[in-house]
Amino acid sequence: MKVIVIGASGTIGKAISEELEKNHEIIRAGRNGLDVVVDITSVDSIKRMYEKIGKVDAVVSATGSAHFGSIAELTPELNEIGINSKLKGQINLVLLGMDYINDGGSFTLTTGIIMDDPILQGASAAMANGGIKAFVKCAAIEMPRGIRINSVSPNVLQESLDKYGEFFPGFNAVPASRVALAFRKSIDGAQTGQNYEVY
Amino acid sequence: MKVIVIGASGTIGKAISEELEKNHEIIRAGRNGLDVVVDITSVDSIKRMYEKIGKVDAVVSATGSAHFGSIAELTPELNEIGINSKLKGQINLVLLGMDYINDGGSFTLTTGIIMDDPILQGASAAMANGGIKAFVKCAAIEMPRGIRINSVSPNVLQESLDKYGEFFPGFNAVPASRVALAFRKSIDGAQTGQNYEVY
Repeated sequence: MKVIVIGASGTIGKAISEELEKNHEIIRAGRNGLDVVVDITSVDSIKRMYEKIGKVDAVVSATGSAHFGSIAELTPELNEIGINSKLKGQINLVLLGMDYINDGGSFTLTTGIIMDDPILQGASAAMANGGIKAFVKCAAIEMPRGIRINSVSPNVLQESLDKYGEFFPGFNAVPASRVALAFRKSIDGAQTGQNYEVY
Repeated sequence: MKVIVIGASGTIGKAISEELEKNHEIIRAGRNGLDVVVDITSVDSIKRMYEKIGKVDAVVSATGSAHFGSIAELTPELNEIGINSKLKGQINLVLLGMDYINDGGSFTLTTGIIMDDPILQGASAAMANGGIKAFVKCAAIEMPRGIRINSVSPNVLQESLDKYGEFFPGFNAVPASRVALAFRKSIDGAQTGQNYEVY
């Protein structure tokens, strides 16, 4: 299969690429894309990415940012970061990619544990995660041409504990390689409308 | 208590007002607001509403629109309707209302059954619902001054079956008065971070 991995230079994106390249052709994309540069907050940038790459069998999104900060200091403007990137950016990868996915192909997006197991300063990120999960569940029942759609919800990564560990006290960090397996399940399996919790 | 009901002229908004006015002072707001006009897609309009009304004990949002249409025809632009209104509009009512809520007050937002029980043409609305639910759950753990936040997730309304019934085949429609009870539970109760399912 031909698979685009958006966010390929991130910790999860790298693990996904390593997992999938065993038996798939990987196109690495992202803001620092190795093969293709894309900014998911821009509709035009997403369109250019798909025009450049053409037809694919799977689109994987391991990207999307959001503002972390206390609810008392969260402003409409800071909340826009998560809306434009992790929420709308990922959904636009689906909406604009529909004509580029082969019959029976798949989209796999990224959510995150914060929507189920809240942390301080995480409300805006949780919003984006919850929006993606619900979109995936509902979109799945009417995707055309046998196209499937799932999301993967990672716990905090073992690889990121130095950087983010203090935000996730008592969370059972998982290795990125385990998160990558959930992406493989979405791509090579047959399920749709799922949110794979890697907790 | 002094309670703002935004979306007061809608079917749920009216039922909430009828339920709450038994023992609370209700300020009716909305695009066709009886007491105060507000457009939740505009940050400036929300700010003007709060400046006009001043301090309150509870903010109730029974408003927010989203585009209904097949996933194959959903565009980034059409998806913006739900993002700007049901998702961001409701969250901005919280972010901009924080300084106007009295100690121990509450916010209650509206989600909807589609995020849990998908229907055709509902992906964009589901996205907004899921985003609100996750935001509420995560924001609740760090709201200042004892302020609480919940959401209410209504099934399709008995009162709306003529208009929307065909989109909800086999759904067990509920009366708006039952949905209003969940809003009362949120306002007069002590729970926080909940999404009350009125299914």
